[in-house]
Amino acid sequence: MSDRKVTKIGVLTSGGDSPGMNAAIRAVVRTSLYHGLEVYGVLRGYNGMVEDDIFKMESRSVANIIQRGGTILKTARSKDFYEYDGRKRAYDNLKKRGINGLVVIGGDGSFNGALRFSKEFDIPCIGLPGTIDKDIAGTDFTIGFDTAVNTAVEAIDKIRDTADAHDRLFIIEVMGRDAGYIALHSGIATGAEHILIPERKTDIESVIASLQEKEKRKKLVNLIVVAEGDEFGGAEQVARVVKEKMPNVDARVCILGHIQRGGSPSCIDRLIASRMGYHAVECLLTGKHNVMVGIQNNKMHYTPLENAVKAKQKINEEWMRIVKILAS
Amino acid sequence: MSDRKVTKIGVLTSGGDSPGMNAAIRAVVRTSLYHGLEVYGVLRGYNGMVEDDIFKMESRSVANIIQRGGTILKTARSKDFYEYDGRKRAYDNLKKRGINGLVVIGGDGSFNGALRFSKEFDIPCIGLPGTIDKDIAGTDFTIGFDTAVNTAVEAIDKIRDTADAHDRLFIIEVMGRDAGYIALHSGIATGAEHILIPERKTDIESVIASLQEKEKRKKLVNLIVVAEGDEFGGAEQVARVVKEKMPNVDARVCILGHIQRGGSPSCIDRLIASRMGYHAVECLLTGKHNVMVGIQNNKMHYTPLENAVKAKQKINEEWMRIVKILAS
Amino acid sequence: MSDRKVTKIGVLTSGGDSPGMNAAIRAVVRTSLYHGLEVYGVLRGYNGMVEDDIFKMESRSVANIIQRGGTILKTARSKDFYEYDGRKRAYDNLKKRGINGLVVIGGDGSFNGALRFSKEFDIPCIGLPGTIDKDIAGTDFTIGFDTAVNTAVEAIDKIRDTADAHDRLFIIEVMGRDAGYIALHSGIATGAEHILIPERKTDIESVIASLQEKEKRKKLVNLIVVAEGDEFGGAEQVARVVKEKMPNVDARVCILGHIQRGGSPSCIDRLIASRMGYHAVECLLTGKHNVMVGIQNNKMHYTPLENAVKAKQKINEEWMRIVKILAS
Amino acid sequence: MSDRKVTKIGVLTSGGDSPGMNAAIRAVVRTSLYHGLEVYGVLRGYNGMVEDDIFKMESRSVANIIQRGGTILKTARSKDFYEYDGRKRAYDNLKKRGINGLVVIGGDGSFNGALRFSKEFDIPCIGLPGTIDKDIAGTDFTIGFDTAVNTAVEAIDKIRDTADAHDRLFIIEVMGRDAGYIALHSGIATGAEHILIPERKTDIESVIASLQEKEKRKKLVNLIVVAEGDEFGGAEQVARVVKEKMPNVDARVCILGHIQRGGSPSCIDRLIASRMGYHAVECLLTGKHNVMVGIQNNKMHYTPLENAVKAKQKINEEWMRIVKILAS
Repeated sequence: MSDRKVTKIGVLTSGGDSPGMNAAIRAVVRTSLYHGLEVYGVLRGYNGMVEDDIFKMESRSVANIIQRGGTILKTARSKDFYEYDGRKRAYDNLKKRGINGLVVIGGDGSFNGALRFSKEFDIPCIGLPGTIDKDIAGTDFTIGFDTAVNTAVEAIDKIRDTADAHDRLFIIEVMGRDAGYIALHSGIATGAEHILIPERKTDIESVIASLQEKEKRKKLVNLIVVAEGDEFGGAEQVARVVKEKMPNVDARVCILGHIQRGGSPSCIDRLIASRMGYHAVECLLTGKHNVMVGIQNNKMHYTPLENAVKAKQKINEEWMRIVKILAS
Repeated sequence: MSDRKVTKIGVLTSGGDSPGMNAAIRAVVRTSLYHGLEVYGVLRGYNGMVEDDIFKMESRSVANIIQRGGTILKTARSKDFYEYDGRKRAYDNLKKRGINGLVVIGGDGSFNGALRFSKEFDIPCIGLPGTIDKDIAGTDFTIGFDTAVNTAVEAIDKIRDTADAHDRLFIIEVMGRDAGYIALHSGIATGAEHILIPERKTDIESVIASLQEKEKRKKLVNLIVVAEGDEFGGAEQVARVVKEKMPNVDARVCILGHIQRGGSPSCIDRLIASRMGYHAVECLLTGKHNVMVGIQNNKMHYTPLENAVKAKQKINEEWMRIVKILAS
Repeated sequence: MSDRKVTKIGVLTSGGDSPGMNAAIRAVVRTSLYHGLEVYGVLRGYNGMVEDDIFKMESRSVANIIQRGGTILKTARSKDFYEYDGRKRAYDNLKKRGINGLVVIGGDGSFNGALRFSKEFDIPCIGLPGTIDKDIAGTDFTIGFDTAVNTAVEAIDKIRDTADAHDRLFIIEVMGRDAGYIALHSGIATGAEHILIPERKTDIESVIASLQEKEKRKKLVNLIVVAEGDEFGGAEQVARVVKEKMPNVDARVCILGHIQRGGSPSCIDRLIASRMGYHAVECLLTGKHNVMVGIQNNKMHYTPLENAVKAKQKINEEWMRIVKILAS
Repeated sequence: MSDRKVTKIGVLTSGGDSPGMNAAIRAVVRTSLYHGLEVYGVLRGYNGMVEDDIFKMESRSVANIIQRGGTILKTARSKDFYEYDGRKRAYDNLKKRGINGLVVIGGDGSFNGALRFSKEFDIPCIGLPGTIDKDIAGTDFTIGFDTAVNTAVEAIDKIRDTADAHDRLFIIEVMGRDAGYIALHSGIATGAEHILIPERKTDIESVIASLQEKEKRKKLVNLIVVAEGDEFGGAEQVARVVKEKMPNVDARVCILGHIQRGGSPSCIDRLIASRMGYHAVECLLTGKHNVMVGIQNNKMHYTPLENAVKAKQKINEEWMRIVKILAS
């Protein structure tokens, strides 16, 4: 690790946006200023570094943003940053301002970029887990997950009103390409009868059997919540399978989509984002470099960036059991 | 018109559910009881009449429902009621309880059923416009529209957070098979750049031109709101057309879907539902039969059921002009 | 009226803030730019005119604000503007920039200031009704009312959860010093048993009698909604009177307070604010000066500023009757 | 501990209601039925036991309640249950139905009652922590806290809109007679400048000094969040102290009050309530009696009822430091 003292910090958001990113930016900026550091915002993820879209931030730059969805620094994927040339230009742009520490808020792809960059150019980087999918090793929370799952819950509650009014089956797709957390949590919280997630093979025969049994009793109010990354490939595909076996069933598909990314962050997302942003700066100052800041069992937990990769959820068997018992 | 005195009232909800139906049921029930009438709930639209699923309601039956989405009486389409035999059975089921007045909360299809029924069996019917689409002649408000459009606005606000964070184009489909009201209102209220509705042919060339112009300036934050009944056939189709002309554009599609039907009704929907429910009973008592109760220019307005059909929106040219000017 | 052509427009918000003011500002700015006019923001109401806190606005100045509560121009009361000297300074500050038209978004007090100013200095002024109280003559809508009343409804819904869980009486105070609209609408929409408003003398004996009757039946779930300007002087005072007569009753007081002013505006408030803002500029351009822009019976309606005063609600007797019947 | 097998379970809610209680009831009922047990609802806390207000519950009794605030079993304090005679009558009412296990959802006061009852009459009791205050030893979560704090956050966000529009100081009181959790979390999440909680003595001189410093810069947008149980005795008292020292300051007081108790529970509150309800029944079945079911570090944690008392928050010094740094 470097023992050069960090005096000027850059901060950026990268990858998909998630609610709470602004709270994290605010915390990074104000903690930096508190310690007498200069702090710079980088626009549109690594693109801003490559293209020199970097600006100095003051305390007022982050006033009144803690409650806002999205990210005031904007975000993007950067093709240029995948190439050495791009990263070299990025480095030069930091260098000329004297920026010698970087905070990257994003997912595991963003951390990979940070890791490579920091190895090549000796600028210490800190990662903050900003993703609604909660599938990052080394932390119980990711910034945005709690908001996303509450958005899903509110939407599914509304759909249940209609499902109930019509005694109808709804198959609802929530986000989660590799991870079933949003599906699992929102499904349990809305009393969904079945929850289909990438981490487990679904016994579709038994799902169909349970639907048929309900159909016989003419009580086909039913919600099935499906993660987009489920083995069937999402809600439309599940609906196709159901209709093959039950041609008379009136099944409707809803894909919640991008509403799950936006919106004012929940209390928890603001709190963890604030806490992580604060600790990101502390890490840079105390020489704890090239780590991702996480929270585990209510304590700060630091994971070397090389290990801060996407982690498969270890499905708690108990939750699957509870789903079955409670949705009866 | 009948001069038999109405003494026992049946109430049902029919067609697609809409937020505020419960407030209307509550008003019908309590106004009936206030006048010393008996009042009966009919389950699942006309099906409950045909299948004798009818129960007596008390004041407490409608306690604590004014704030609930969906409908406690459930709703459905009824095949049997399309046939004379079905309607005859329905009549017999009313008759045996002495029910001699009916309040039907639903859309124009439901009113057609009511009209035919009342002609054949001389049971006076009152229609209340319960539909999120607001496309009923003879009323400025339909029960559920205001809630649905606010739900759409909240969802689009969230999508804008992400659109903004990524400088990305979103094409968002809202409900409205024949009517563009939800698209128009939610589009203006969220600052959408383009709004595509069934009532007007879209100059797609000019939409594309405007997108291309924005792309050049690298400012392709853009929301296009599309009614499902638009000439292109919804958001997916619009996206296809856009991508043909602009293969590099990163356009995302969101279909808001059934979340627009559910949820706790807005203040306005509760108020108009209460007012209409109250007047439905007054109509039955004062011999104003076989009308739909509406509100026009803040006053009650009664439309004979035969005229209470789906009405094409007369697009206010001014609104289209305002969209163009304000979304610049 | 002046026949000088308006070429540069100033816009300000004054008095209490209300949700939708930002949508109105956005409409004024973009409509001005569309017509090739320059447009200036004035900060903190008339204070900014007096103290020369005025800045040029571009299209981007109002990007992404349509959904925000509060006002980006800030608001205040101005002592200086009450005096001729202050107004003279204000005029000079407009003059030196060539500003020759003014849009004032606020309540009747703000319109008085505008009227006097326009008479003294021949700067045409347009008023937009921005107040949550809806007590302005000449318009069916004021900017902010619909949002405020929905905020009140959501809050009272939550209180009802607790009232119901405890079979308890709640006395809830909503805003409205001179006008009972918020109380009346939110009270009906939440099924309140009694609604106390400034426009009518309350028969407190009969309220007490009804509470005592309910207490006997051990069913004292009860909501009383009180406008702050009610004859008793608000919820605390009403509670005092109730407890004098019913010493054993467990009555709780909630004062909703300032949460009613903030928050993201409802669809309607964004729409009317957009429409009014658009027409404010049209008025300035077409010589319709010194009027308040309102909407009546779905049409634009222009009231000379001298008549745009606070208006007592003409209480619709029907609503009072509906309250009694439905809350039983 | 008893080794009699539990075969019939009673469930009740007691003390102040909190969002998520219904989700817990649902879980207790359905888990009981899954295990082939009979399950009985007790109305109005211990009162229902004393007064024999007890009814058998089926799976459908708890359909569609997971999303509802309040408690379908109602809640109350019971004077009779404080006396041996009352408890004896309560026991007789359980006995005659064969109820031999009890789940009590409430706060520490309710647990005391359960403990005494179970000692006197050998009916095993399980406590579930249902309180918005989060001040119970032995669990990281209490049912309702997350919802209450998010309600507070949404309300304070709205107040900030107005505070910002007017550059005004607001002093906001949130719930928490003995515990500052709601104040601390909602204060941090809304960027409040000062947070006053019962667990720490406030250096009011330094608060005033900071306000005065801001007043000098004419930037008195300021939020102070106060727990009702703070040393000064709430927001009104804090305002009094502030105005003594700063007579010209325009400080407004808002008391959020009972809106914090109601409303649809958040995802987390539904999840923990479901999980705790499930484990309450498991405890009764496996002989783990007279404990409170909690969650610590993501694992179930069982606290003997005698230890499940109100616990003072150990204020995390780090949070207080973060408040200071971030709110600058």
